[in-house]
Amino acid sequence: MLYLYINETKIVPRYSETDQMGVIYHSNYFVWFEVGRTDYLKESTISYKEMEEVGIILPVIEVNCKYKTSAKYADNLIVKTTIAELSPTRIKFFYEIIREEDNKLIADGFTEHAFVNKIKGRPANLKKTHEVIYQELQNIHKK
Amino acid sequence: MLYLYINETKIVPRYSETDQMGVIYHSNYFVWFEVGRTDYLKESTISYKEMEEVGIILPVIEVNCKYKTSAKYADNLIVKTTIAELSPTRIKFFYEIIREEDNKLIADGFTEHAFVNKIKGRPANLKKTHEVIYQELQNIHKK
Amino acid sequence: MLYLYINETKIVPRYSETDQMGVIYHSNYFVWFEVGRTDYLKESTISYKEMEEVGIILPVIEVNCKYKTSAKYADNLIVKTTIAELSPTRIKFFYEIIREEDNKLIADGFTEHAFVNKIKGRPANLKKTHEVIYQELQNIHKK
Amino acid sequence: MLYLYINETKIVPRYSETDQMGVIYHSNYFVWFEVGRTDYLKESTISYKEMEEVGIILPVIEVNCKYKTSAKYADNLIVKTTIAELSPTRIKFFYEIIREEDNKLIADGFTEHAFVNKIKGRPANLKKTHEVIYQELQNIHKK
Repeated sequence: MLYLYINETKIVPRYSETDQMGVIYHSNYFVWFEVGRTDYLKESTISYKEMEEVGIILPVIEVNCKYKTSAKYADNLIVKTTIAELSPTRIKFFYEIIREEDNKLIADGFTEHAFVNKIKGRPANLKKTHEVIYQELQNIHKK
Repeated sequence: MLYLYINETKIVPRYSETDQMGVIYHSNYFVWFEVGRTDYLKESTISYKEMEEVGIILPVIEVNCKYKTSAKYADNLIVKTTIAELSPTRIKFFYEIIREEDNKLIADGFTEHAFVNKIKGRPANLKKTHEVIYQELQNIHKK
Repeated sequence: MLYLYINETKIVPRYSETDQMGVIYHSNYFVWFEVGRTDYLKESTISYKEMEEVGIILPVIEVNCKYKTSAKYADNLIVKTTIAELSPTRIKFFYEIIREEDNKLIADGFTEHAFVNKIKGRPANLKKTHEVIYQELQNIHKK
Repeated sequence: MLYLYINETKIVPRYSETDQMGVIYHSNYFVWFEVGRTDYLKESTISYKEMEEVGIILPVIEVNCKYKTSAKYADNLIVKTTIAELSPTRIKFFYEIIREEDNKLIADGFTEHAFVNKIKGRPANLKKTHEVIYQELQNIHKK
């Protein structure tokens, strides 16, 4: 786990994301994870948009989030994203959401995805079908 | 305007739809309008899903909503949907959101849509390309 | 685990909940879990709205979802909700999302919540502060 | 209308905001308008968070949006926000959403808000209750 590339994405919670408890509604953290994941891929290797264009989609197969303290409207947050695991058929991202003001951990979690052939709608072995992309992901994963 | 078909759809506001003012966040009304519109088409003539299957999509070209009083979590609401205007190239729905408890008007609004050919991504003349569907929409519009 | 009360809630996916993969965006499953949870409490014991009125809120401390197959627009779904664990300070719900047409499991997951005093914003021991509610939850949990 | 302050806010559409037509779902434009409005107030005078802290909330009374062309995932957008009208009891914002790549107008619209006393839940006359804030809003409106 030592040399992982970590991407940092700023998030400013939106009023629409609050709920009547006065905090950010919990499912929005997964939207922020996705923003972090998108940013991670764009900054490091191949953007998610380009992946879709070469016919690979990344449907979610499992997600998890642990909430430590509440995020609030007008907080300044940072989503830290890394690749936690990578295999020819799956990729798992790990996330931390940090409040910038005091560096406090708001939440952490993961999302695990299958590589799927967009046209066929079936699982893909990325190492076989798109070796270059797979190598690039491995490189940043290990970097 | 006298004999329009009016569809009624029950909506129970969700916790995720509240905001920190303690009321339903305003953009969700357009999601409810869409639920009403979907229900209207399914109940009366051709479902939106079937429309997409025959290659017609209905992108929004203008929307409007006037908010009279706040909807709250655990209210029981009714969306009343009608077709306000219909032409070979456009359709306009009109909506009222009513609170069931006291029959109070929460909001009203409209959404206007173009008929678009899904494959070509270009405006369609529904009367020419899908005359039967167009006639059915006209029948319920006038009913 | 034998005699749990299981609540069933119908869900019709909304167009707004789809994404450009043509399926339901994954974070919406947590919104549906919440709809199931709300319904569970309303049907069985004390509604979530009433809980908030007596000063108890249920912030989420951990959530998880495993996605088996994709839910689609115009599917008819059922959220099955049970209480998986209950202690004086925490409650954990377990959910299954089933497609009505073929009884297929779309996803399952859990949400774990702390009992929190709304005014003080601090953890509450429900058994001590609201014993009747705690007993009722235990009764349906064991039923 | 000549010397209005115009605020520009960058928006990168999120995957969660797409729908199965492959474009951004229309109600999200109102979320982006809100992000623009929040930014406008923060940059120019008093932040929305500070307004809530002095007891003023801005519930929406009418919204409108005209969609010119579709926004897509991975577009880079700019929301331009101005104050279109201001009175002691109401404020109306006007918005344009521009695609950065080709400066194309994606949509424009407005949101009109009442000034409301947060505690009393009743309309407020901002000129009387918070004259300094009202003057500041007038200054940037006219600037």
